[in-house]
Amino acid sequence: MPAQQQSEAPQVEVVEVSPRDGLQNERRVLPTGTKAELVRRSLAAGIRRVEVTAFARPDRVPQMADAEALLAELRDEPGLSRIGLVLNPRGLDRAVAAGCDEVTAVVVASDGLALRNQGVDTAAQLDSWRAIAADARSAGLRVSVIIAAAFGCPFDGEVPVERVLEVAGGCLEAGPDELAIADTIGVGVPAQVTEIVTGLRTLDPDVTLRAHFHNTRNTGYANAVAAVAAGVTVLDASAGGIGGCPFAPGATGNIATEDLLYLLARSGIGVRSDLSGGPDAAQVAATGTWIAEELGLPQAPAMLGRAGWFPSA
Amino acid sequence: MPAQQQSEAPQVEVVEVSPRDGLQNERRVLPTGTKAELVRRSLAAGIRRVEVTAFARPDRVPQMADAEALLAELRDEPGLSRIGLVLNPRGLDRAVAAGCDEVTAVVVASDGLALRNQGVDTAAQLDSWRAIAADARSAGLRVSVIIAAAFGCPFDGEVPVERVLEVAGGCLEAGPDELAIADTIGVGVPAQVTEIVTGLRTLDPDVTLRAHFHNTRNTGYANAVAAVAAGVTVLDASAGGIGGCPFAPGATGNIATEDLLYLLARSGIGVRSDLSGGPDAAQVAATGTWIAEELGLPQAPAMLGRAGWFPSA
Repeated sequence: MPAQQQSEAPQVEVVEVSPRDGLQNERRVLPTGTKAELVRRSLAAGIRRVEVTAFARPDRVPQMADAEALLAELRDEPGLSRIGLVLNPRGLDRAVAAGCDEVTAVVVASDGLALRNQGVDTAAQLDSWRAIAADARSAGLRVSVIIAAAFGCPFDGEVPVERVLEVAGGCLEAGPDELAIADTIGVGVPAQVTEIVTGLRTLDPDVTLRAHFHNTRNTGYANAVAAVAAGVTVLDASAGGIGGCPFAPGATGNIATEDLLYLLARSGIGVRSDLSGGPDAAQVAATGTWIAEELGLPQAPAMLGRAGWFPSA
Repeated sequence: MPAQQQSEAPQVEVVEVSPRDGLQNERRVLPTGTKAELVRRSLAAGIRRVEVTAFARPDRVPQMADAEALLAELRDEPGLSRIGLVLNPRGLDRAVAAGCDEVTAVVVASDGLALRNQGVDTAAQLDSWRAIAADARSAGLRVSVIIAAAFGCPFDGEVPVERVLEVAGGCLEAGPDELAIADTIGVGVPAQVTEIVTGLRTLDPDVTLRAHFHNTRNTGYANAVAAVAAGVTVLDASAGGIGGCPFAPGATGNIATEDLLYLLARSGIGVRSDLSGGPDAAQVAATGTWIAEELGLPQAPAMLGRAGWFPSA
C-alpha cells in the first residue's frame, strides 16, 4: 500500500457487492463454495461490509437461489458484516433466519422499473420498505434502503430529481441507518449526482449517504468522485467490475473495487478498513481477475489489474 | 442528437486524436486509405480538429511512416483542421511541407520519459519547442504545445505539480495558441487535474487550455470532468477509445470520443461543431466499432456503442 494512503484518516467506506450485484447479471451460475471464497477474499483484502446475496424468488433469480446455503458457509467469518438484499417482508424473514448482519431494501424511483421488477409500483414498494424497516429493527439488524433507477429508468426514461427526492422523503420516514442512491442502468453524470446528493442532504443533514454506480457508459468513476465531494461516505463497488446490465447486453457493470481504491487513494481519500493501510487494492485486483475467470469472461472490466498501481513499488 | 444538446451554447471543443495517438500504440499498422477514412468519418460526425499524424522517425514509429501520404489524401477536405504532432524543428518542416493546418509540439515534464522518448532532457525539449513555435508562426500555422507525463512518469514516478508549472512557464514564453497537459500513462486523478489547471490559470489567465487523458486506470473521464470545471476548454479523445499504453501492455488508451460526448451532453455542456446539434455521438460510436475491427481488437474500449444513448430515442 502506498504511504499516502496510510496517513489519511478514513473518510469513506467501500461495500463489496460482487457476490450479489456482480454475479446476479452473469449468465454462468457459480457454485456456493466459489461465492463463499469471493466473500472471504474480499474480507481478507480488508473490506468488512459485503453484499453477500439477495433473497429473491429462485425461479426469477437463479443466481441467488443458494442464499441460505451461502450464509451458512459464512457463519463463522469474524469481522464480516453480511448484507442481504431484500425485496419484501418475506425476504427479510429469510435474511434474519439465514443470519445476515445487515439488510438493504430496494425502492425503485420509477414506476416502470418497479412494476417490471417486482410487480408493484413505487408507492407500494415504499409501504413494503416501511414494514421491512420495522421488522429489521425488531430483529436487531442494521437496515439500509437503496433508491434504484435514481438517475434514469430503462422503461420510463428520465427520472426527475424531484421524484427521487420525493421517494427519498418516503424512505427517510422509516429511519434507515443508511440511505443509498443507485444508478441501476449506468446513465448518470456527475452534475446529477451533485444535484441529488445536495437535495438529500437538505432533506436530512445527518443520515449516512451511500451510492451505487455502474460504469455502463464510462461515467461511474466520475460519479463516485462527485458523490464523495457532495457528502456521500459509503460507495458500492464490485471486484473486477463484474456485473453486467440486464438492459444493455454486452455492457459492463458495477464500478470496480480495485479501480475505485486506486482513485480514492491517489486522491488522498482514506478508506475504512481493519487493515491499517486501508483495503489492499492488489489483492482485490487479483480477486477480480480470478472471479472473471470463474465466470468465463474474456477479462475483468477493471483496469488496475492490467495497468498496475502508480507509482510502482 | 438529444434536444438538450442543441440548446446549449458550445463550451468545449473535442479534438479527435485516434488517427495519431489511437493508432500509434497499436500493433497492426493500418493502410493510409483506412486512416484517411477514419479522419473523414470524424469530420462527418461533426468534429473539425483532428490530430492526423505525427512527424516522427519512420524506423521508430512505423505506424506514422505515411504522414506525408496521409496528408496528401486529406488535402481537399473542407472544414478539416489537420493537426500534425511534431517533436523537433525537422518534424515541423515536414508538417509545413505536408500541408498541416496546425501543429502540436511535445515537451515531456519528466527527464526520464523525455530522454527515453527523444534522447534529450526536458530543458532541451523546451529549447526545441521555442524553435518550433517561431518557425510555425512564420509559416502561418496555429501552434499548440502539450506537456506530456504531467501526471506521472513511467520512469521517474511522481511528477510534482511545481515541476509541471515550471515547464508550463517555459512553454508559455513562446506564446502557444493553446497549452495542453497530457496524462500520458493514465495515472492522474481529478484532484491533480484541479491543482495543475488552477496553477496554469494563475500563470496565464488567458491562454486556451487543452487536456489529454488516458483511461488506463479508469480515471480518465473523472479527470475530464475536473478539467472542464477548472477551465479547460479543449479535450482530446479517441473514437472507440482505441490506443493502448506502451508502458502498460493490455491496458486501454485514450478516453473515447463517443463516451466523452455522452458525458458532456448529459452534463449540459455544449460541444463546438459545424453540426447544429454538436458532434454526432452515434456516428462516432459506429466509427469506434469499425476502427476496432480494422485493428483486430476483440472490441473497442468505448462503452456507448455497446450500451446506447440515454434516454433512447
